[in-house]
Amino acid sequence: MSQVDMVNKEFLGLGPEVSGLKKKLLETAGLVEKSVRLSGDLFLGKSVSEGLIKEIFQIEALVNSAHKDIDQECMRILAMAPVASDLRKIMAALKVNGDLERISDQSVNVAQNYDKLDGHMNASQAFQIRKMSEITNLMICSALDALGSGDVDKAKKVIEMDDSLDTLNSQAFRNAIDGIKEDSSQAELGITLILIARNFERIGDHATNISEEVIFTTTGEDIRHAGGN
Amino acid sequence: MSQVDMVNKEFLGLGPEVSGLKKKLLETAGLVEKSVRLSGDLFLGKSVSEGLIKEIFQIEALVNSAHKDIDQECMRILAMAPVASDLRKIMAALKVNGDLERISDQSVNVAQNYDKLDGHMNASQAFQIRKMSEITNLMICSALDALGSGDVDKAKKVIEMDDSLDTLNSQAFRNAIDGIKEDSSQAELGITLILIARNFERIGDHATNISEEVIFTTTGEDIRHAGGN
Repeated sequence: MSQVDMVNKEFLGLGPEVSGLKKKLLETAGLVEKSVRLSGDLFLGKSVSEGLIKEIFQIEALVNSAHKDIDQECMRILAMAPVASDLRKIMAALKVNGDLERISDQSVNVAQNYDKLDGHMNASQAFQIRKMSEITNLMICSALDALGSGDVDKAKKVIEMDDSLDTLNSQAFRNAIDGIKEDSSQAELGITLILIARNFERIGDHATNISEEVIFTTTGEDIRHAGGN
Repeated sequence: MSQVDMVNKEFLGLGPEVSGLKKKLLETAGLVEKSVRLSGDLFLGKSVSEGLIKEIFQIEALVNSAHKDIDQECMRILAMAPVASDLRKIMAALKVNGDLERISDQSVNVAQNYDKLDGHMNASQAFQIRKMSEITNLMICSALDALGSGDVDKAKKVIEMDDSLDTLNSQAFRNAIDGIKEDSSQAELGITLILIARNFERIGDHATNISEEVIFTTTGEDIRHAGGN
């Protein structure tokens, strides 16, 4: 998703009467997407981590502020007694707003832990984290695309992708433990890898939540907790 | 909070016209409180962990189901064009509903990891986890009490308690790393301790969220993200 693509789309099916909400959600989604991308870029071997980390923190402050504004705007719209179909969309907007805010928190967590990893990972560890970051990025882009277009198939694909992220997360956990058992001086590195892998896995969960909202808003089907989560 | 105490209280200030929502939220809050208590009881040295774990899972299934029902009930009430003051309460109910569901998930995470700890912790580790569990329990009880009574002072105290939980979580992290460095065969135990400490810390975050909603609903003051979180 690029913000340009999104502007002409009916984000969550929200019509022009709620253009303020739509605009704010769009902006926030764009920020959050960027935040996740930057948290992944940290692992691309670029030598600009300081700037990236600073930007992730700056984005979080903007997202936190938008989180409150969007909640308030939803309440203002709800006070105008929207029709039932719009009501469902506003409810979805409220929940997506919460997910966006938490995704940004997870990116910050990755950034906070990054300095413990920088330069210490072996090739296999770096590959694993990059792979998780790539899938996470793809899930977020696709979920936000689906949010813009109401594309249920795309939303379902995001949910499917979550399984591979869970598998990678479990692998990262096992590999880190094995690594630490071989060389206990690697304890901090291994644990940091586990925590960062969990951050990416958590971002994937939020992309799944957003996709479930797209499916609910578009089809009326509430598929949350279908996997017992 | 006991459910008996709560029944006569105006949970979130919700009046009798939304008694179905109030009842369902009450039941769910009671279940979630129990789930957190059981996840702490695992560390009291009782020999009944299997039964406790089973019950935590059973509660999660009930809470997941209630999570969807409460969302639906909120939507039904919102469709009836509530007055502005009620609107704020319904919005709070929606958010508290999300927090309750995530608290129950965290209790399940504790239960899932428990078997990796059972019998392996030393006295200091066990003491630390029990302390975190005690504070978490107190925070949840107080937050749900404040939710029932609209007691802003109590809600503020919950938010204050969160700091000590964060400190204990950091200590647990450091201790686990030190323990692993001394004896790498303790890697799995140490990492599990870190993850469980984070589960309790996360439950504390949700208790804080609920308390922030109580303050917002009662005073109109939105203090979220005040600490930059």
